[in-house]
Amino acid sequence: MSTADDARRARSGRRPGSSGTRDAILTAARVRFAQAGFDKTSIRAVAADAGVDPALVHHYFGTKQRLFAAVVQLPIDPEVVLAQVDAVPLDRLGETIVRTVVGLWDSPVGAGAVALVRSLVAGGDVSLVRDFLLSVVLERVRRRIATESDDGRARVALAASQMVGVVVTRKIVNLQPVTEMSLDQVVAAVGPTLQRYLTGDIGAGPPEPREP
Amino acid sequence: MSTADDARRARSGRRPGSSGTRDAILTAARVRFAQAGFDKTSIRAVAADAGVDPALVHHYFGTKQRLFAAVVQLPIDPEVVLAQVDAVPLDRLGETIVRTVVGLWDSPVGAGAVALVRSLVAGGDVSLVRDFLLSVVLERVRRRIATESDDGRARVALAASQMVGVVVTRKIVNLQPVTEMSLDQVVAAVGPTLQRYLTGDIGAGPPEPREP
Repeated sequence: MSTADDARRARSGRRPGSSGTRDAILTAARVRFAQAGFDKTSIRAVAADAGVDPALVHHYFGTKQRLFAAVVQLPIDPEVVLAQVDAVPLDRLGETIVRTVVGLWDSPVGAGAVALVRSLVAGGDVSLVRDFLLSVVLERVRRRIATESDDGRARVALAASQMVGVVVTRKIVNLQPVTEMSLDQVVAAVGPTLQRYLTGDIGAGPPEPREP
Repeated sequence: MSTADDARRARSGRRPGSSGTRDAILTAARVRFAQAGFDKTSIRAVAADAGVDPALVHHYFGTKQRLFAAVVQLPIDPEVVLAQVDAVPLDRLGETIVRTVVGLWDSPVGAGAVALVRSLVAGGDVSLVRDFLLSVVLERVRRRIATESDDGRARVALAASQMVGVVVTRKIVNLQPVTEMSLDQVVAAVGPTLQRYLTGDIGAGPPEPREP
């Protein structure tokens, strides 16, 4: 189905008072995503659950990724970050990811995300956001770095561990002086960590001899 | 006051049914630590609040550090970790910290700590544990790496950010394959990150020329 088709059907299907429809789609999507996970949820199934035409879902939310972002109330469109990841050369991936992610958390939209992280770690539906992180965000980075002998899964997960740590210490726990460092300082310190995780040597290698 | 004095006074002051006394000390300590923070809380003040002799506090809890660990229900004695940090050569600090901290979280005692982290991040008293982390744990590492020109504060905080990230992704969010990696694999991947943060080059340096 073309985007033009979608738009036409969306226009014809939209009712005058449309906020109820949008809410019904969101509610159906929330339940579906929670039950089936990100990968196994389709726009078509969400539309069926909400009793609307799939074109309406596309009309209101665009892609499944954006529908998900609306359900978990992500304060930004993940595509903004991912487009940057696709655009940079491989050897600048580390600093680019650090600059983009920490920059976003430092911006006004980041404040909304703090509440999301708190509720998730407190026992909210971690698996849903983790699925999304794995399926969409990390997967896009992984595809850039995968080689024939290394699928890159461990690499992107390690990179994620450092980004989670920076965001939690800088934005949630407020651990000084991580909180006070400028964005440039964070990029200088943490960028090389991500670069090594993504494209450097992360293996154990032969055990080093130790003094007895 | 000598330890022998403490012990004597503790013995003479201890009542037959002592669990009420211990609980009273814990309750007083919880309030004090929360109001004044770790640094500004003294054993003497806690004892006064609980209406007991300071020797009794020493008797039940030993040091202020251990009293704190009991208050926040730390599943291990932080001294166990810190003794290892003091014992290794500077160039093995990174791998040692990763192995000790992740090893502890992987052990049965780590399970209890997950609940603590969840409640803290959810909005519990983050400042109290952060104070403790800064005053005791990070301070001990900082003293080992500080030089005349670098107090090491940013270095230990960056190291903490990576450790927080590994623990959260491995133990709380269960991000694959960080969760599945062996301890040796985690040490091989993350140890060099901590080593660089603690003793390597983390500065911005001169800005690199970019293509226009």
